Amino acid sequence: MAGYSISKDDYAARLKKIEGQVRGLQRMIDDDKYCIDVLTQIGSVTKALQSVGVGLIDEHIRHCVQDAAARSDEEGDAKIHEATAAIARLLRT
Amino acid sequence: MAGYSISKDDYAARLKKIEGQVRGLQRMIDDDKYCIDVLTQIGSVTKALQSVGVGLIDEHIRHCVQDAAARSDEEGDAKIHEATAAIARLLRT
Amino acid sequence: MAGYSISKDDYAARLKKIEGQVRGLQRMIDDDKYCIDVLTQIGSVTKALQSVGVGLIDEHIRHCVQDAAARSDEEGDAKIHEATAAIARLLRT
Amino acid sequence: MAGYSISKDDYAARLKKIEGQVRGLQRMIDDDKYCIDVLTQIGSVTKALQSVGVGLIDEHIRHCVQDAAARSDEEGDAKIHEATAAIARLLRT
Repeated sequence: MAGYSISKDDYAARLKKIEGQVRGLQRMIDDDKYCIDVLTQIGSVTKALQSVGVGLIDEHIRHCVQDAAARSDEEGDAKIHEATAAIARLLRT
Repeated sequence: MAGYSISKDDYAARLKKIEGQVRGLQRMIDDDKYCIDVLTQIGSVTKALQSVGVGLIDEHIRHCVQDAAARSDEEGDAKIHEATAAIARLLRT
Repeated sequence: MAGYSISKDDYAARLKKIEGQVRGLQRMIDDDKYCIDVLTQIGSVTKALQSVGVGLIDEHIRHCVQDAAARSDEEGDAKIHEATAAIARLLRT
Repeated sequence: MAGYSISKDDYAARLKKIEGQVRGLQRMIDDDKYCIDVLTQIGSVTKALQSVGVGLIDEHIRHCVQDAAARSDEEGDAKIHEATAAIARLLRT
C-alpha cells in the first residue's frame, strides 16, 4: 500500500478539479478563445498538477523513506535516491 | 477569432488525451499505486500540457503577432509583449 | 549581427550580477551554509537566468522574426520555428 | 554544519564550471552571437544549476531530515516540510 492513503480524498478532489480544468481548455479551443488566455489557463493547470506532485514527494519522504530507513540504511538510501530522481524528472518535464 | 483554427482538431485530440491521463492519475491514487509511479505520470501529463502551450505560442507568433505587425508597429509590439509575458508565466508556473 | 544590440549593456549587467550570485553560492557551500538557504538562492539565480532567456526570446521575435518575415514567408516561418523550439527547450531544461 | 560536507569539492567544482558558463554567456552577448544560441546556452546553465539543487535536496533528505527524525517526529516533520517547500519553490522559479 502506498503512503498517501490518509489524504487520498484530497488528491482525488484536486485531480477531479484538474480534469475539469482540462475539459475547460477543450471548450476554450472549441470556442476559439484568445490563445494568450488559453496559455494562462494551461499555466494554471500545470501549476495545479505540480502541486499534486509536490504533495506526493512530501508523502514519499514522510512515509516510504522513513519506513525504509527504519528497516535498514540501504533501503532508506534506495528510497531517497528514487525520490530525488523523481524530483529531477519533475523539474525537467 | 483566434489564430489556431487550422489545427483545432489536433489541439482537441491532445487535450482529450490529457484529460484521459488525468483520469488515469485518479485511478492510480484510488488503487494506491506507488507514489513514485504517480509522480512519473504527473511529469508526463505536465510535459503534454506544456507542449500544447508551446504550440499555442507558435500559433500566436505566427498569426496574431504577424497580423498585428502588418497593421502597425504599435500593435505588433503589443502582441509580442503579450507573448513574452505568457512565456514568462509558463516558465514559472 | 544579432538583434539584441540595443539592450546589450542591460544583458551584460544582468549576467554580471548572475555571475556574482554564482560566486555567492560557492561561498555558501564553502561556509557550510544550511542547504535550504543554498536552494533558495539557486532558485533565485535560475529565475534571473530564465528572465534573461525571456528577454532574448522577446528580442528574437521583435527583430529576427520580423526581419525574416519581411523578406519572405518561408524565412519568417523558419525563424518562428526556431523560436518555439528554443522556448520548448527552455521549458524543459 | 550542513550535511553536504562530503561532496563539498564536487559542488565547488560544479559551481566553478557554472560561473565559467555565465562568463561565456557574457562573451556571447558581447560578440553579438545569435540569440537562439545564447538561449540554448542559458538552458544548459539552468539545467546545471537545477542539478546542483537536486543534489542539495538529496543531501537534505539524507542528512538533515534523517538526523532530525532520529531526534523526534516533530523535528523530522519540520525538516520534511522545509524540503518540500524548497522543492515547490524550485519547480516554480
